[in-house]
Amino acid sequence: MLQNGLTRRLKIDYPIIQAPMAGGVTTSELVAAVSNAGGLGMIGAGYLSPDQLRNQIMEIKALTRKNFGVNLFVPNQYAVDEQKLKHSEKYLQTIESEIGIPTVTPSLPNYKQDKETFQQMVNIVLEENIPICSFTFGIPSEEIRTKLKENASIIIGTATTVQEAIMNEEAGMDAVVVQGSEAGGHRGTFAAGEQQSLIGLMSLIPQAADCLSIPIIAAGGIMDGRGLMAAQCLGAMGVQMGTAFLVCEESGANTLHKDAILEASEDQVVITKAFSGKMARGVNNLFIERLQKTEDDLPEYPLQNALTKGIRKAAAASKNPEYMSLWSGQSPRLAKKLTAQELIEKIINETLKLKNVLS
Amino acid sequence: MLQNGLTRRLKIDYPIIQAPMAGGVTTSELVAAVSNAGGLGMIGAGYLSPDQLRNQIMEIKALTRKNFGVNLFVPNQYAVDEQKLKHSEKYLQTIESEIGIPTVTPSLPNYKQDKETFQQMVNIVLEENIPICSFTFGIPSEEIRTKLKENASIIIGTATTVQEAIMNEEAGMDAVVVQGSEAGGHRGTFAAGEQQSLIGLMSLIPQAADCLSIPIIAAGGIMDGRGLMAAQCLGAMGVQMGTAFLVCEESGANTLHKDAILEASEDQVVITKAFSGKMARGVNNLFIERLQKTEDDLPEYPLQNALTKGIRKAAAASKNPEYMSLWSGQSPRLAKKLTAQELIEKIINETLKLKNVLS
Repeated sequence: MLQNGLTRRLKIDYPIIQAPMAGGVTTSELVAAVSNAGGLGMIGAGYLSPDQLRNQIMEIKALTRKNFGVNLFVPNQYAVDEQKLKHSEKYLQTIESEIGIPTVTPSLPNYKQDKETFQQMVNIVLEENIPICSFTFGIPSEEIRTKLKENASIIIGTATTVQEAIMNEEAGMDAVVVQGSEAGGHRGTFAAGEQQSLIGLMSLIPQAADCLSIPIIAAGGIMDGRGLMAAQCLGAMGVQMGTAFLVCEESGANTLHKDAILEASEDQVVITKAFSGKMARGVNNLFIERLQKTEDDLPEYPLQNALTKGIRKAAAASKNPEYMSLWSGQSPRLAKKLTAQELIEKIINETLKLKNVLS
Repeated sequence: MLQNGLTRRLKIDYPIIQAPMAGGVTTSELVAAVSNAGGLGMIGAGYLSPDQLRNQIMEIKALTRKNFGVNLFVPNQYAVDEQKLKHSEKYLQTIESEIGIPTVTPSLPNYKQDKETFQQMVNIVLEENIPICSFTFGIPSEEIRTKLKENASIIIGTATTVQEAIMNEEAGMDAVVVQGSEAGGHRGTFAAGEQQSLIGLMSLIPQAADCLSIPIIAAGGIMDGRGLMAAQCLGAMGVQMGTAFLVCEESGANTLHKDAILEASEDQVVITKAFSGKMARGVNNLFIERLQKTEDDLPEYPLQNALTKGIRKAAAASKNPEYMSLWSGQSPRLAKKLTAQELIEKIINETLKLKNVLS
C-alpha cells in the first residue's frame, strides 16, 4: 500500500505528507527535501505574508521539480472581549518584566484584513499553479474551492471529528486530513466542541473511513513505519507527519524546540490554550503552567496569539525554552535527528519489513 | 500474528481479551462465550464481594473448560475531605429530589476494609486456580505477586503511560495492558498526572513497545479487525476490548446503556469525574454536564462513586439514561449488536482479509 490512489493523485512515491507547520518550520530546504525523497513537502503558510509565500514558492521550485503543496489558515470571525484582552495583556506584562523584556503594545489582528490576505494567498497559489493546497481551521468558500479545482489544484481539508470530515467531503474537498488527539500544534477543529474533538486516531480513522469516500490522511503521533502501517490498517490512505519532520535537520524550528522534543516523554506533552487562545499540543513548560488556571479567560485566537508574540520571540532570542511554544505530538520518544530523506527512507524500510512480518 | 507468544502463554486461540468491565457487565455468560469462542473472557471483579466472585467463578467453570481471568482493583489510600463530601452530597440531594428519588445516606467506603476485601479476592483467585489475574489502579504488593506466580497464575498490569508500563514490567508483571486515551470507563492511571495520562494509542503503543520486553496488550477504541491489526503493527501482541463486548447480547450492561452507545457518535463520548471522582470516559448526558464545573471540587474516588450510587441505581430503575454512567470508548460508531462469538468471528475474518490486502 505504499503506492495507492492517493499517491497517484498527488503524484508522489510514498503516502507521506510533511505537515504544513507554520511559524518558520517548513523552510524551502525541508519542503524540497521531502518532495525530492518521494513524500509531499508542504509550506505552512499560515503566518506568512503574500510576498513571503511567493518568494518561498520560487525558492522551492528552484530546489525540486517534484510536486509540493501549500497550506492556508481559513480566517474565522472572533469575539473581541476588551476585558479579557486587558486582563491577559496585564498578566503577560508581569511575565515580560519578570523575564526582562521590554513591553511593546502588540498590534492586534483584524478579521477583515485577515480575509483579504487569505484571498491574496489563494491568488498566489493559483498564479503559481501549486498542484496541492490544504486548509486548516475551516473550509474555504465555494468560490475559492471552484477556482482552485478549475486550476487543477487538489484541495485537502482538515477535520478533527467524523462530522467535520463529512463536511469536508460534502464541500467537494479531494481528500481530508483527520487530526487525532495525538497531534502536535494547533487543533484544526472548526465545527465541533473543543473537548469533544480530542479523538484518538485508533478511533477517528476507522469511524471516518466508514463514513467517507474521499481519501483519508491520518495525522497525530505518527513517526515511523509502524504508524504508517497502522494508519493504513485503520482505513487511511496516507499519513501527515509533523513532529517527525520538525526535528529534521532541514527544519527551521529553533534548536531549543528540537531539543525539547528529543528530550521529552509522552506524558510531558500537553494541550494548552496559553499561547494563542486556541487548543494546541506542545511540551509542557513554565508559561503553560502559569496560564493554566486562566485558560478559559483568555482572549480568542488569534488575539492571544498576537499578545504572546513578544514573549515567545524574546524567549527564543534569550534561549529560554520555558516561554517558547514547543509544539509536539504525543510521540516525542520516537523523534530522531535525521535528514528528511533519511527519515523517509527509514519509514519505507520499516514499512516493508512490517509487511513481511504480517504476511 | 493471530497466534503469538501472548496467545500461547494465555492458552487462547486469538489475541482478543474481553475487558474486565466492572458493575455487572461481565456476566458468566459473556465471560464463558468469549473464552469458548477463542478469546479470553475476564471477570470484572472490581465491585464484587468475595462471595459473588467465588460464585461467578464456579458458574463460569460450568460453562467453559477454556482459560478465563479475573481483574481486581488495587485499593489506594484516598483523602477524606469532609467539606467536599458535604458539598457533593448536598448537590446530589438536589438532583435526587428533582428526579424524585428518596435520599438515602450513602455508606462510605473504608480503605482498611477495601484492603481486606482485596486480600480475600486474591485468596479466591489462588484457591480457584484462576490462570490469569489482571490488576487496575496500581500494582499489587510483592507478596501478592509472588503468591500468584507461585500458583502459576499469569499476572497482567494496567498502564496509561510508558512510565507506568515500565513500573509494571519492573514489578515482574507478565504482560501489561496499555490503556489509550480512547478507552471507555475508568482511567487506570496510578502514577502519572491525570491530564498527562491521556495518550492516544497511536503514540502510546510504539513508545511503550520500545521500552518494554513483556507483551503489550492495547486497550482503547479497538472494535474490529482494523484495530487489532493496527495495534499489532504498532507493537502490541494483543488487544483488550471493552465497548465492543459491552454491547454484545451476553453482556449484563443495561439495555439503555447499550442503546446509548449504539446511537452515539465519537464526539459525544467525554471524559468525566462526575460519577466517581476519578476520570472515566462515557457518553455525555445531563449528569455529566451538571457536574462539569465542580469536577475539581468533588471528593476523591471511591468516595464520589459511593455518593452517586443511589442516583445511578434509581436512574436505571426509572429508565432515565441522563443520570446513568454510560461508559464507552471513543469508537461508538463501530459498535454492533452481536453475540460474543459473532463478534470474535467477525474480527478474525476482517483481520485475515486485511492481511491479504497488505501482503
